[in-house]
Amino acid sequence: MTKKIQIKPIGIIHSPYKHPSDVPIQGKFREETQAKIEIYSPYEKGLLDLDGFSHAYLLFHLHQTEKEHLQSSPYLEDTVHGIFAIRSPHRPNHIGLSIIKIDSIENNIITFKEVDMIDGTPVLDIKPYVSYFDARSGTRSGWLEKHFKNGTVPKQAVHKNR
Amino acid sequence: MTKKIQIKPIGIIHSPYKHPSDVPIQGKFREETQAKIEIYSPYEKGLLDLDGFSHAYLLFHLHQTEKEHLQSSPYLEDTVHGIFAIRSPHRPNHIGLSIIKIDSIENNIITFKEVDMIDGTPVLDIKPYVSYFDARSGTRSGWLEKHFKNGTVPKQAVHKNR
Repeated sequence: MTKKIQIKPIGIIHSPYKHPSDVPIQGKFREETQAKIEIYSPYEKGLLDLDGFSHAYLLFHLHQTEKEHLQSSPYLEDTVHGIFAIRSPHRPNHIGLSIIKIDSIENNIITFKEVDMIDGTPVLDIKPYVSYFDARSGTRSGWLEKHFKNGTVPKQAVHKNR
Repeated sequence: MTKKIQIKPIGIIHSPYKHPSDVPIQGKFREETQAKIEIYSPYEKGLLDLDGFSHAYLLFHLHQTEKEHLQSSPYLEDTVHGIFAIRSPHRPNHIGLSIIKIDSIENNIITFKEVDMIDGTPVLDIKPYVSYFDARSGTRSGWLEKHFKNGTVPKQAVHKNR
């Protein structure tokens, strides 16, 4: 039941964000920033045909925290929620998940936008984003609804100021 | 660069699918199937307020394979693509990612639909699905476009028959 699993980085992110407080809560909210993924050479051939996709899921290691807070308040409000209802990095297993927008792929380097990872972040996996499976409409977004319901993006989603 | 990372299961999936060949390529394509996630008791308090969300991302360990095929052909066609352009389980780190539809949460048990995991799959993380960040339109889906372009779901996406 508690068997450990070993994983390893397949690449590293070169990002203009050097500190966790530089990063928007979602890369989509500061779209102009560009960063690069360097895929380590043993994995380069895994990139074949990824350039046909405009977006991908990036799984990465939230390597700057070892904290596990099972309940805490997110950036957008002071109310406490469970870790599985928020996107905080202080979570069991410290695996981050973001959708990135692929600009180009040359050899083992992916240049992308919609960046919310800091420089030096280890990459764990890349999966193609397929809107036929991955885009859902008519969903309920719990405590987040009230922050987005007027169609605007809350200021704290772009710059963390707490 | 090749530093190993240790992760651990936070729960386990109880699924009617007992064998990898039982599973649809995406849970969304066989919507009626229901399964349960048992969250191990140390993590139960992390579920607070997840029931406000209709959908969640589930990260899980693809525990039935140790293969790493950096290029292979997906279920839908014979053409070979890189592992980062397909959703095959035979990938570095063997981390699976699916969107699930939450039916109910009682104590440490999540009942859900849109199932594409086999029975006994170790759970690594749950993140709320937030359509404001996670639903993208106007995306390009590379080699997959031709299989979905007429608005129907290819038969092999529902039942693996190769």
